[in-house]
Order: sequence, then structure tokens, then C-alpha cells
Amino acid sequence: MNIMISEVGPRDGLQSINRSMLTAAKHRWITALAASGLREIEVGSFVHPILLPQMADTGEVVREALKIPGLTVMALVPNLKGAQNAIASGVHKITVPVAASQLHNMANVRMTCEQSIDTIAKICRLRDELKSPVEIEVGIASAFGCTQEGRVSEDWVIEMARRLAEVGVDSVGLSDSVGYANPTQVKRMFTRLIALLGTKAGGAHMHNTRGQGLANVVAAIDAGITTIDASQAGIGGCPYAPGATGNIVTEDLVYLLESMGHDTGIDLDQLVAARTILLECLPGETLYGHVADAGVGKGFRYADPLRIKQPTSATQ
Amino acid sequence: MNIMISEVGPRDGLQSINRSMLTAAKHRWITALAASGLREIEVGSFVHPILLPQMADTGEVVREALKIPGLTVMALVPNLKGAQNAIASGVHKITVPVAASQLHNMANVRMTCEQSIDTIAKICRLRDELKSPVEIEVGIASAFGCTQEGRVSEDWVIEMARRLAEVGVDSVGLSDSVGYANPTQVKRMFTRLIALLGTKAGGAHMHNTRGQGLANVVAAIDAGITTIDASQAGIGGCPYAPGATGNIVTEDLVYLLESMGHDTGIDLDQLVAARTILLECLPGETLYGHVADAGVGKGFRYADPLRIKQPTSATQ
Repeated sequence: MNIMISEVGPRDGLQSINRSMLTAAKHRWITALAASGLREIEVGSFVHPILLPQMADTGEVVREALKIPGLTVMALVPNLKGAQNAIASGVHKITVPVAASQLHNMANVRMTCEQSIDTIAKICRLRDELKSPVEIEVGIASAFGCTQEGRVSEDWVIEMARRLAEVGVDSVGLSDSVGYANPTQVKRMFTRLIALLGTKAGGAHMHNTRGQGLANVVAAIDAGITTIDASQAGIGGCPYAPGATGNIVTEDLVYLLESMGHDTGIDLDQLVAARTILLECLPGETLYGHVADAGVGKGFRYADPLRIKQPTSATQ
Repeated sequence: MNIMISEVGPRDGLQSINRSMLTAAKHRWITALAASGLREIEVGSFVHPILLPQMADTGEVVREALKIPGLTVMALVPNLKGAQNAIASGVHKITVPVAASQLHNMANVRMTCEQSIDTIAKICRLRDELKSPVEIEVGIASAFGCTQEGRVSEDWVIEMARRLAEVGVDSVGLSDSVGYANPTQVKRMFTRLIALLGTKAGGAHMHNTRGQGLANVVAAIDAGITTIDASQAGIGGCPYAPGATGNIVTEDLVYLLESMGHDTGIDLDQLVAARTILLECLPGETLYGHVADAGVGKGFRYADPLRIKQPTSATQ
């Protein structure tokens, strides 16, 4: 199966750390990620710079990223104002945060879930009025549980997905930004989502907070999902969910999927090499991941037998 | 589903580190592990003390462990001499190492695969002659690939399993001691193993070398396997496979399985508390695992609703 890995490091990762990465460094990193074969990258967030100074250069980062051939450039927008800026920037795709937990949503964007859906409806109308080709994606956060509310009604998550698709969102995914999900639940929820939305069912955004990230990805793919979020070196988490560190690691995800026979189109050697930009530009930052250390196993082959370059790094 | 977690830390973990844990400390640790609900523990190895001085006290460790009510006490034996000692010790279950890769098997036990099968046949005959009730288990190592040979023939792995069952082994499992397996392969191989051996199909021994350990466990359970090896704090690996660190972490495994609705019978609070014995008795040793740090998620419940004590450590 072809799986699209959507790299969220330059947004989700960089907004979770206190330091700001220089704009030129972001561009080097995004270029290296795209060169490894990643076809979609969330490059920044159109949010007020007082809230997230790390994202203040998003307009410039988008402008540079748009020059990379074949790359889908994506940005997060929290509200209508952000959406206006994002559309003006020429970004291909925007993602709007909303949580299924009322408490989490209030903490995150200071709105009830219903108010968030209204805002997203307005963003969709704006897009239509401007005849903008921008694609609008929503990943429902706290879809598998919430650090404040605990269990979240699965029926409510699915109902939110229905309402979001109804107001014009192009794809609705499910997000476990706090690392609560388990494979049984992931398979059940994505199966329901696909049954409800068909091709408008979006991707899986899983965290590895309790070590279960990749197991959850496999469950989402079993359910029929073909877009998976990940972050290089696992940097990033959710700044509003205490202790909720741990995006799944893009490098480990690529290795897992290719080993399973799923084609990601990504060159592992080049992807792992891109970590050096993080090491250089964010010295001291913790980089996660197993494959960068262990290398690929001897005899590893990419899913697509026609790939010219098989990996060189059979380090074991 | 009821899943039996077989704890391998006191053998696989302790033999992989250079220091020896004091016998009394081992007993404290094993007692704490059993108290958390683990029903099977591999407590040591009947191997020559010159080769593995850390295991020199296995006879004494077994003697103490046998006093713990309800615990299945297990030990590794590399050869007939070890089996004699193990049977004499009164251990309930022995596990004999063999690898499907000729090179790995030679490096590990200095025999061809066929010679190992002959040795295991002799061990089975010895057991029968002595009318010993000891159960004999084999986990076929390198069943999913080998650091020296790369890909290992799946047909050969299944053929070895067939021969091992034929010579009298009670249960034959598959082991990924080098972290090469992927969920697709794991499901395919365990499905074949169960089709061939039925109730003689043994457990899954998975490593997390490339981050895929828990995803592989879920795949093994999907195939119908109900016994999973794990190591507290993930200590241990395979001393003969360079770089192959990373047993899956018992704490994370229990959390994952219980979240999925599988009953392990294990109390997470007590299990996590047992880590303090490792911290105290093996200072400086790296302890792995996510759940010990992150705690269980809010709203977490054990699979069995009748468990009296639900976890207290909703740390998030």
C-alpha cells in the first residue's frame, strides 16, 4: 500500500521547544526533509507571534517551502485571522486544531467545541469566497481520551467529524496528542470514520507517550487509513497537554512501514542524515528514535523493488 | 483475552549486563515481580559460570523462587548438562536456545541447527527417562532475520518448529532477538506456527531495537498467540548479537494490553514499584519504558472490571 507520511516537525516540533530556530535553518531542514522523499510538510503556524514567537516567521518559511517542487506545504491556523494570512501566503493546505474534549479545546483555543466548529465553518466559507484552492484539514484532538476529562465519548468524536465534513472541511483525521490511544480503539474509531466520511476521512496523528505509537499506526492502517503524521526525531508534543511529549518518530515509522511492504517513497539514509541539521541548529535538544542508532537490519529492502538505491546503512 | 506475560528480566536482562546482582537482591526482585501478578518468570540460566558468572547462583535463585506460591519458575539451559542441573533443581520449565540462522546458532551455542535439534531431543529423552514433570520450551531465535545472514527462510523456521515438536518439545515459540521483525511478518509466521502446532505453538519474544516491539506483539496476538515475553525496564538483549539491545518493556506491555481489553492479571502500580529494586541494586543501569514516567492515562481501567484495585497513578 502507498502510505503518505505527513511530517509535522517544523510546526509541531519547533513550537514545543522554547528556542526559535532561525528561518534559514528551518528552510535547510525542510529542504532536506523534502529531498528524502517526504511529500507533505507542516512548516509552521499562522498564530499570533506573542503566543508562539517560534512561529513568527511562518510567512517567510511558507514562501521558501513553496519553491520546493512537488511538496505539499501545510500550515496550522487557529482562527479566521490565521486562515486569512495562510490563504494569502499561498500555502497548499491548512490544518485547524479542535479537540473533542471541551476542556482541552477551551484550554487550547479558548472556545467550546461547537464554537470551534463554527469558526471552521467560517474558514471554509472564506476559502470558498476567495475561490482559494487551499485544502482544509482538521485533526480532532483528544479523540482517544483527554488528560483532563479522561474518557471521551466515541460517539461525540464521530459526530464532530460528521459536522466538520458538513461545514466544508476536506479531510477530518483523528489525533491522539496525549498518547492515550490503544490499537483496538484506533482500529474501531478509524473504521467508523471511514464508514462515515469515505475519502474525506483524514490521517492518524499518534503520539508515543506510553510507547504505543507505532502499534497504533499499524491499527490505523489496518482500518484503511493511508496518511500518517510523524515528526523527525520525535520532537514536539502538545504544549497545552502537560507531560504529553512524544510525536512518533518519522525515521522509525518509515522503517516499520517499508519493512511491512508499504511504500512511503522515502529514502531512509537521506531522512536520517537530515537529523544532523537539528543537531547543529538546536544543540542540546533531545532527539528520539531507534533506527537512527540501530540502522536498518541486514537484508532490509524497501517495499518498492524498483527503487534504485537500497539503503547503505546495514550497520548491524 | 487472557494474555500471559513471561518475565525474562532476571535471566535475559541480568546476563546482558556485566555486573552480577546479589542473590538476595535477585530474590527480592523476583518476589516483587511475582507479587505484581506475573505468573511466569525466567529466573536464571544453568550455564557454566565461567561463561556467565552473573548466572552462577541460578540453583539458589530457583530454590528461593520455588517458594513463591503460584509462580511458574523457568530457567534457560544451553545443553544436556544444563538440563540435568535444571531438572535436579526442581524448576517447572526450561527453555533451550536455538537459532534458525546457522551462523547465529553457531556463534551462540557452537552447534549447527541440526545439532541443536539433536541436543534438544536428548534433553526431551532425559526428561522422559527421569519421569520429570518439567516443561520444555524452545524459542527459535533469528526467526525473523539475522544480523549475520540477513533474511532467514521462513519455511526453514517452520520446518525447525515441526522437528522440535516432533522430538518432544512442549511448546515452540518464535523469537526476534535482534529486532528485525515487522507486524506483517509476525502475523504471517505465528499464523503458520499455530496452524502447524496448535496448542504446542509457544510465545512471542520480541525486541524493540527499531521501535517496533509493541506493534509486533499486537500482530502476534492478532494471530492467536497468548504468551508474550518481556523484561522489566527493558533490560537485556542478546549478548551474541551486536547492538541488539532492547527487550520490550513489561510495564509498557501491560499498559498496552490492558488498554486493549486483554487481561494480564498484573497490577501496574506494583509492577512499576519493582523498578526501584533495580535502581537500588544496579545503580547507573539504564532503565527503559514510557509508562513508568508518563503514568497511566486518566480514565484508564484494567481489562477485568472485577479487579478491586484500579490504578492510583493517574499522573497526568
